[in-house]
Amino acid sequence: MDVPPVRPAALRAGDLVMLVSPSGPTRPERVARGVELLESWGLRVALAPDVYARHGFLAGTDAQRLADLNGALRDPGVRAVVCTRGGYGVQRIVDGLDLAAVRADPKIVVGFSDITALQLALWRGTRLATVHGPGAAWLDERTGPASAESLRAALFTAKPVVVARDPAAETAGVTVGGTAAGTLLGGNLCLLSASLGTPDFPDLTGAVLLLEEVQEPPYKIDRMLTHLRRAGVLRGLAGVAVGQFTGCADEWAVSIVDVLGERLGDLGVPVLGGLPIGHGMGQRTVPVGVPAILDAVTGTLTAEAAVHDTEV
Amino acid sequence: MDVPPVRPAALRAGDLVMLVSPSGPTRPERVARGVELLESWGLRVALAPDVYARHGFLAGTDAQRLADLNGALRDPGVRAVVCTRGGYGVQRIVDGLDLAAVRADPKIVVGFSDITALQLALWRGTRLATVHGPGAAWLDERTGPASAESLRAALFTAKPVVVARDPAAETAGVTVGGTAAGTLLGGNLCLLSASLGTPDFPDLTGAVLLLEEVQEPPYKIDRMLTHLRRAGVLRGLAGVAVGQFTGCADEWAVSIVDVLGERLGDLGVPVLGGLPIGHGMGQRTVPVGVPAILDAVTGTLTAEAAVHDTEV
Repeated sequence: MDVPPVRPAALRAGDLVMLVSPSGPTRPERVARGVELLESWGLRVALAPDVYARHGFLAGTDAQRLADLNGALRDPGVRAVVCTRGGYGVQRIVDGLDLAAVRADPKIVVGFSDITALQLALWRGTRLATVHGPGAAWLDERTGPASAESLRAALFTAKPVVVARDPAAETAGVTVGGTAAGTLLGGNLCLLSASLGTPDFPDLTGAVLLLEEVQEPPYKIDRMLTHLRRAGVLRGLAGVAVGQFTGCADEWAVSIVDVLGERLGDLGVPVLGGLPIGHGMGQRTVPVGVPAILDAVTGTLTAEAAVHDTEV
Repeated sequence: MDVPPVRPAALRAGDLVMLVSPSGPTRPERVARGVELLESWGLRVALAPDVYARHGFLAGTDAQRLADLNGALRDPGVRAVVCTRGGYGVQRIVDGLDLAAVRADPKIVVGFSDITALQLALWRGTRLATVHGPGAAWLDERTGPASAESLRAALFTAKPVVVARDPAAETAGVTVGGTAAGTLLGGNLCLLSASLGTPDFPDLTGAVLLLEEVQEPPYKIDRMLTHLRRAGVLRGLAGVAVGQFTGCADEWAVSIVDVLGERLGDLGVPVLGGLPIGHGMGQRTVPVGVPAILDAVTGTLTAEAAVHDTEV
């Protein structure tokens, strides 16, 4: 955790970004708004050859998706790799990532949800700081102007990213006061659980763990957190940043807040709930793999940028 | 894997069995038929004090469930611990199991689904052979006379258990020919995935891995199998026994057979599909933690008994 992260250069108008689909399939109409936004910031947008491929629940065969991903990571003209969406499938190909290409020419990698597994693999292999934010399959009704500005700032500026707790958010109540400093790591809880026992699960000693989830019932959230606890990986944690747990329905009259409070509240570290990070309304972008400060008293998560200034 | 399993004594008429609920909650009317069956075999049935307790999605608090489980395991009068059902929750308490009591007086432990995690913990801590079979929450429409006789035989006799493939079963088509011999280990795929990275995940070197699942979509089955593959735990496997994958719906026009065939078919070991073991119709009981022979040519799984003859 003491090794500084590898930071790609911040984007500038005119830069080329490439859309890839390393997980689930998408369609042109679903990414149209995302492309429009990226272009509105002066970026040029290229599509990976098989970005719209389909192979069951995957965006093409493993060979297609890996070729697209490595093609984008190797292309010296590409400055950011923007995943269209999550879904499922990147774990099937991450062991074939061209890590040497990433080390030789670090690029911004944007995505979340299933893309957490890609970000964990890149962190393990290269210590690349990445960007936990909306994919190109942009939904204005969920990710409005503030979400767009949050993504833009994370891509174009080396300023720290500050995300404030929404006191009205469902998970706001799981907060345990205190402050913590450490590398911000994590993302989607399912993908963290499904990485335990693999080399990609990060060392969380001294880290601030980011957690978000979508459409998992409370008992499965409990199972995943119990999995992390029983594997011993939460022992040296500095703090927990709790994002959105969207559509995590309440079949058993046990709320997601009950489960998060019970499984995280006794870890002896600060927990900041109610962060607008995840699959819910108003999703904010946050860098991962960077030093961060969790302030569960004032209710802010402050993370260093994933990018470095191109002027420096 | 070379250490022989610890086998409890086979049941005899007049023996006392205790019903416990270490995972999800149940009700008296749901176990009435199971109690009737057990009593019809001449057994006396006792209820753990909190067998009908409720605490959200759990059958009582962790303290209640652990006290019931350890109470049953410690009671010298009890010869079998029969779990009422799975659900979720046993992982929350398995680290508190009284393993010394199990070693001092090994008892039959029956259950499946979430109970896989209990059976893995007992295997890790004591090498206890256990019984993968229906809980006391018995459903005649799903588990008819042949299921009842299969459970009875596994509890009362030390004869090997033979389970034959149903050629009409959904997963019959994933078979890869060949024969394998090894310790039969496993059960519910979710619980195996959720045990990776914990000390309870068994060494599968030379083992025959039993897999079954319920109500998980194909992409999640793929994720769990990919998790096992990426964790490296399937490398020394002798074979795979594929049970029922019940209600694993087909949202993406990818069948569960496609996923199982693709993720298991290239392991280089025999795979026997179509076994009536799991959450589906006609569930058969099979011992786990015992030497077994998987014959993917004739279509049978033969396992040594989990129990030893009381006459010997």
